[in-house]
Amino acid sequence: MSKKVLVLAGDGIGPEIVAEAVKVLKALQDQGAIDIVLEEGLVGGAAYDACGDPLPEETLAAAKSADAVLLGAVGGPKWEPLPIAKRPEKGLLGLRSGLGLFANLRPAVLYPQLIDASTLKPEVVSGLDLMIVRELTGDIYFGQPRGVETLPSGERRGVNTMVYTESEIERILRVAFELARKRRHRLCSVDKANVLECTELWREVATRLSADYPDVELSHMYVDNAAMQLVRAPKQFDVMVTGNLFGDILSDCAAMLTGSIGMLPSASLNERGQGMYEPIHGSAPDIAGRGVANPIATILSVAMMLRHSLAAPDAASCVETAVARVLDEGLRTADIMTPGMRQVGTAEMGDAIVAAL
Amino acid sequence: MSKKVLVLAGDGIGPEIVAEAVKVLKALQDQGAIDIVLEEGLVGGAAYDACGDPLPEETLAAAKSADAVLLGAVGGPKWEPLPIAKRPEKGLLGLRSGLGLFANLRPAVLYPQLIDASTLKPEVVSGLDLMIVRELTGDIYFGQPRGVETLPSGERRGVNTMVYTESEIERILRVAFELARKRRHRLCSVDKANVLECTELWREVATRLSADYPDVELSHMYVDNAAMQLVRAPKQFDVMVTGNLFGDILSDCAAMLTGSIGMLPSASLNERGQGMYEPIHGSAPDIAGRGVANPIATILSVAMMLRHSLAAPDAASCVETAVARVLDEGLRTADIMTPGMRQVGTAEMGDAIVAAL
Ligand SMILES: CC(C)[C@H](C(=O)O)[C@@H](O)C(=O)O
Ligand SMILES: CC(C)[C@H](C(=O)O)[C@@H](O)C(=O)O
Repeated sequence: MSKKVLVLAGDGIGPEIVAEAVKVLKALQDQGAIDIVLEEGLVGGAAYDACGDPLPEETLAAAKSADAVLLGAVGGPKWEPLPIAKRPEKGLLGLRSGLGLFANLRPAVLYPQLIDASTLKPEVVSGLDLMIVRELTGDIYFGQPRGVETLPSGERRGVNTMVYTESEIERILRVAFELARKRRHRLCSVDKANVLECTELWREVATRLSADYPDVELSHMYVDNAAMQLVRAPKQFDVMVTGNLFGDILSDCAAMLTGSIGMLPSASLNERGQGMYEPIHGSAPDIAGRGVANPIATILSVAMMLRHSLAAPDAASCVETAVARVLDEGLRTADIMTPGMRQVGTAEMGDAIVAAL
Repeated sequence: MSKKVLVLAGDGIGPEIVAEAVKVLKALQDQGAIDIVLEEGLVGGAAYDACGDPLPEETLAAAKSADAVLLGAVGGPKWEPLPIAKRPEKGLLGLRSGLGLFANLRPAVLYPQLIDASTLKPEVVSGLDLMIVRELTGDIYFGQPRGVETLPSGERRGVNTMVYTESEIERILRVAFELARKRRHRLCSVDKANVLECTELWREVATRLSADYPDVELSHMYVDNAAMQLVRAPKQFDVMVTGNLFGDILSDCAAMLTGSIGMLPSASLNERGQGMYEPIHGSAPDIAGRGVANPIATILSVAMMLRHSLAAPDAASCVETAVARVLDEGLRTADIMTPGMRQVGTAEMGDAIVAAL
């Protein structure tokens, strides 16, 4: 039976990069490697502009009935004046929470072809291959109470709530332990247990669960130290697991270590194996519509989709190999361009990857 | 009239590094550059061990009546099993809040002599000079409600509260605007206003206040992007201002860009100009007691104290010049050692700086 893939291009460079990823999916379909049906939908600023809601009901319903969602990016200065409830980001957060996508996998991998793109010294980052597992449906992103209230004095006060239950912590930690098992057997759990009780509970649960994974070496690190260690010696890490807010900050920091965030995919999974796949970079409004954005992160997100939601691990490897081949051939989009390479646009890069499949 | 300086050595390498900083203060006293009275007190794990409380009443009282506090560092694995309320960190947090030290200044400066110590490429960090202004008495560090509660289902749930009032935000932003005025006139306010209402209020207040500082260029950045930009192009920043939690993470990341956190001081100020001064590195229990720790961050914290709380800006410059001279002479502690330099211990470094005064 065909699998259903919902394509949500979103804002900024979203439509351009998603178009290339769709080419890849269609090529695999033509080769008989997969059997999918593609649908399209609106999310983010594009959806707000069309119908006043960053996550229209039809979009959420279509996502729920899909096997996988491919998302470009949401947001841009145009919608920044809107209240939080109407912003493009609310569309993304609504999908995460509506689909229960609690496990966000964010690999930070350095491509040997792109080592010069990093701002870090080559010896510090060469061979970097770390995986950040970020909890995605809890924490201060969704905690209640929240909002801005007016005190009796007339002064206003902004409040958000960081909150985790034991079962939420356990669920994401098991995903991380399992992943570490398939990798280098090391898991670093990041918290602020010396100050925040919520993360003290996190640390306690992590420690308790580690008894079930004797083959995985668990360590704990405070979030401030983790931000330091990512800069000082990122190769010390295999899998890192943390909450939604710390994961947001650390995964972007880790991604930037590779120097090529235009290359990095992500997967957000729920308990039924449904997933949403998106590049970790944003909507880059400054370069939108110019055909220069790097589609590779989105194409590698398709590879993650093939592996995690479409049960097509061979097709996933094919896509990854095709990307590596095109890089070996010297093709580069502007963001990863270095002297001696051949600079290409979004569509040319997508076409080259399809040709290499 | 003499000024009173309370010395709190704390834990780990605290006593060793503070001893060298005290040598510097005494030398300045002998030269007639300052007129101070030194007192000592207990804080952190040392205080807990002595009297079961990481912040004894006498310590807080002595700090309140001092013009400045010099702090080494607190914490260590020995006290990690303790509940949050008894941990060494609580001593530090109690001082911050008890003295109302809302403005934490954390410079991240790259010493030209130490450019090789950075893990970043020289062109990315050479000349780096950024100042992080971190709010220090509010946010999720102190917000109520907090703690771990048991739900009717028997499951536990950890909660912390991120909270800021308009006046708290305004107070720290004014400090940051004033600092930017004395520097390169650029201020970047860091928040997560696309998701957290508390920081949406932060952004609104920052924007409103900017009308009072037309000579300062205010920009806003999301915290995840800020973590990226610190790695990508840290020299784009002059002054950054943010809340307590984001400041904790970003200032450590920024400090590590310089490659020598053993060099970086900090100041925490209240509205009356009282201040607490401490190195930004921690208690480094792994090297404690071995006489190898770098005392420079603590000695440069004394320079900040001279400038901000002891009204002795000339003496502050003297200390900074002495540190630079000793580095020029090639003296290095283990953490900043590079080939061709002369490696020295904690006391030898302190003595050399005193001699260079
Ligand atoms: C766009 C924003 C809401 C989102 C987040 O904060 O989670 C983004 O930064 C991310 O990391 O996917
Ligand atoms: C020790 C700890 C409580 C403290 C903090 O989180 O503020 C430290 O990390 C710092 O940055 O001064």
